Amino acid sequence: MAKLNTPQGTRDFGPDVVRKRNHIFAVIRQAFERFGFQPLETPAMEYTSTLLGKYGDEGDNLIFKILNNGDKIYGQAQMAKDSRELALILCEKSLRYDLTIPFARFVVMNQGKIHLPFKRYQIQPVWRGDKPQRGRYREFFQCDADVVGSNSLLNEIELLQIYDTVFNTLGLSGYRMKVNNRKILTGLAELVGRPDLMLAITIAIDKLDKIGDSGVREELAQRGLSGSEADKVMEFISLQGSNDEKLDRLTQLFAGSETGLKGVEELRYILGSGLTSFSRQPEIDLTLARGLNYYTGMIVEVKAPESVNMGSIGGGGRYDDLTGLFGLPGISGVGISFGVDRIYDVLEDLQLFPETAQQGTQVIFFHPGTEKLAEVYGYVSRLRERGISTEIFPDEIKQDKQYKYAEKRGIPYIAYVEDNAPGVVFLKSMTGKQRHQLTPAELDAFTF
Amino acid sequence: MAKLNTPQGTRDFGPDVVRKRNHIFAVIRQAFERFGFQPLETPAMEYTSTLLGKYGDEGDNLIFKILNNGDKIYGQAQMAKDSRELALILCEKSLRYDLTIPFARFVVMNQGKIHLPFKRYQIQPVWRGDKPQRGRYREFFQCDADVVGSNSLLNEIELLQIYDTVFNTLGLSGYRMKVNNRKILTGLAELVGRPDLMLAITIAIDKLDKIGDSGVREELAQRGLSGSEADKVMEFISLQGSNDEKLDRLTQLFAGSETGLKGVEELRYILGSGLTSFSRQPEIDLTLARGLNYYTGMIVEVKAPESVNMGSIGGGGRYDDLTGLFGLPGISGVGISFGVDRIYDVLEDLQLFPETAQQGTQVIFFHPGTEKLAEVYGYVSRLRERGISTEIFPDEIKQDKQYKYAEKRGIPYIAYVEDNAPGVVFLKSMTGKQRHQLTPAELDAFTF
Repeated sequence: MAKLNTPQGTRDFGPDVVRKRNHIFAVIRQAFERFGFQPLETPAMEYTSTLLGKYGDEGDNLIFKILNNGDKIYGQAQMAKDSRELALILCEKSLRYDLTIPFARFVVMNQGKIHLPFKRYQIQPVWRGDKPQRGRYREFFQCDADVVGSNSLLNEIELLQIYDTVFNTLGLSGYRMKVNNRKILTGLAELVGRPDLMLAITIAIDKLDKIGDSGVREELAQRGLSGSEADKVMEFISLQGSNDEKLDRLTQLFAGSETGLKGVEELRYILGSGLTSFSRQPEIDLTLARGLNYYTGMIVEVKAPESVNMGSIGGGGRYDDLTGLFGLPGISGVGISFGVDRIYDVLEDLQLFPETAQQGTQVIFFHPGTEKLAEVYGYVSRLRERGISTEIFPDEIKQDKQYKYAEKRGIPYIAYVEDNAPGVVFLKSMTGKQRHQLTPAELDAFTF
Repeated sequence: MAKLNTPQGTRDFGPDVVRKRNHIFAVIRQAFERFGFQPLETPAMEYTSTLLGKYGDEGDNLIFKILNNGDKIYGQAQMAKDSRELALILCEKSLRYDLTIPFARFVVMNQGKIHLPFKRYQIQPVWRGDKPQRGRYREFFQCDADVVGSNSLLNEIELLQIYDTVFNTLGLSGYRMKVNNRKILTGLAELVGRPDLMLAITIAIDKLDKIGDSGVREELAQRGLSGSEADKVMEFISLQGSNDEKLDRLTQLFAGSETGLKGVEELRYILGSGLTSFSRQPEIDLTLARGLNYYTGMIVEVKAPESVNMGSIGGGGRYDDLTGLFGLPGISGVGISFGVDRIYDVLEDLQLFPETAQQGTQVIFFHPGTEKLAEVYGYVSRLRERGISTEIFPDEIKQDKQYKYAEKRGIPYIAYVEDNAPGVVFLKSMTGKQRHQLTPAELDAFTF
């Protein structure tokens, strides 16, 4: 039997893991719903033409492509000149790579039907052919909330508030939220005198975490900045101080940059509106750039508490023309995303999953033998009607084997009847080791 | 811009549809949990070698295969001699085709860790390259519950009870449950004198719904049965009467077939155990065969109420050696599946979705202008803290436009403040058209 395993970078989720993941999904979904976001789901497959060119060259390579069905592919394959062409010819469909592009496609396809501003959330898996490593999988869930069709900064405030709500509800109060603004990065490029290299500068400083100061310097040089220009960039991104101090300093620096000043003004409003208080104040991080080209305003990234070694667990920002990719220009949007698979790893590391998120079967009845089966099955049915997850061991085997099964499964209560005690149900707590002796009526009223 | 659409046979689900689908999932999940089933999730991708050969030749063709990433595929493609080989060479991975095979793979991979009997449920999408038609999609959800590692017929009874619970909870009390037993079909083959053609007979009568009596006769002839043998098959499957009458008649007919009698005995116990009562008694249908080869005991199929034109909305049965496919023989299992996408269509046809399954945002506040924004945002935040889905219109535009937006969205309450009425919140019911004039404290206590 060849490789009996799941493909590289993918995982099975057993009962405990599914329950814990569902806890995270439930907390996020509840926050999205309370803030008035509407659920959307798109297919796992999109036309390859919908996805290609939207995630950069690297993204194009990491998209999983689905082979066309049928007998024509052999002939079609002959027309290709290289691997890239072969993939395009043979694969009309590809797997979802993120939730943003399908969302943009949906908005454009349904522009007559949806009402702007459209606040949607989407919780679905995506697939990427990345090299797997800690916190990076080839199949992982994204949880996105976006508002399109509104320029109001109130949206930014609400989205940051959703982060705050969710991470506090999950018990992850040590999370850290970093914000910046793409207009400030434009301002920086103008300040350096290289507005033409804004994207190059952004891409370089986005890597600071991974390659350090000297790496960024090198990258800036490679991308065409002179030594003194690079100095200015490095000096800029190392600005220290409180949010207000940074914003004040930026206001001075950007005297000549209208765009830069606009970015400062936006951040000042978002962080200082007084509409809401954050349990942890978002921190302005001038090195935050976020790789994706489509951002144009505020950008945000969430990091796990410092005690945990884990990259970003969430991120997002404002983009001005996402639907323009599909022929509907002029619709601004802003969104955030939760990295659920990483959040799971962090909560597990910090042991933050509540007991209730792990609860399955609450009671198991031993098989009582054929004669008493109807009586016991009646108890089972009544507990289930009360909403209590109840099992009856299906096979008539020795009680000590049934007991061991219950123990291994971690079921909190076992129940059984005995021939010499008619009308009595024995209920044993596996944690407290107490044994209750109950009448059927007492069982019906028992609080588990 | 090329095809801006979802691939053939796949669909977007907008907010209303997602909410209604979630209602179905919640009802099914709740039943599974109450009966002590444990959740499992497997990856969307499996190794192609895991799936191939498990669903028959037709299935092999309908599996969606995923192109290997990288630059090697062009060279590899040269080694193929036809489309089938090309697919196998280029596609190490394929998309999940059902939930049963991945479950069997999981059980075998984790045999040291799981405790038998293992009762698992799984709610995930599967993908098949079928020709799309009403009720048949290329991406659709399956909801499966299976027990492996127990021979007890109690499992069959509980699974039928889950069907009864779920369809009644969904309001689909007119559903019809048909049962049969593969051992009875084996008995039939023996009765006809062609035990060697048991599978051929099964496959032919399985098509009765689609091709009618004469079609089945033709198919039987093609598969090698003589005219008189086919007569016996046709006579057998047209046996009429109540369940008990059918079982009595089968007992007579199967005097010479041990397997046939065993099948009768099993059905008699499952349907007459007295352990539970069904709101609608399952009906023995001797034409029910179910195509999948791996069934060996009871088989079941659920049909929508007669008023709705829709095929099977659920099905399942007992199989004796599923994990044997992956080298772990001797583990018996029994399972059922819900066809959620079809159940959705049926509930929609019969207008059976409850109001609560469609509820999104409950209140929207008009944007009050900058000056009063903090006051209004306070109201919004307190409603959200109470768990009420609340929006504030993010942009400061004319109130009548905001009103129209609320109306189109179908939000049941709008709320606003007025400059000349400080400390008052106006709350208007969009359905009842009443307007409440509330103090902030009254709003906090208002029952929506």
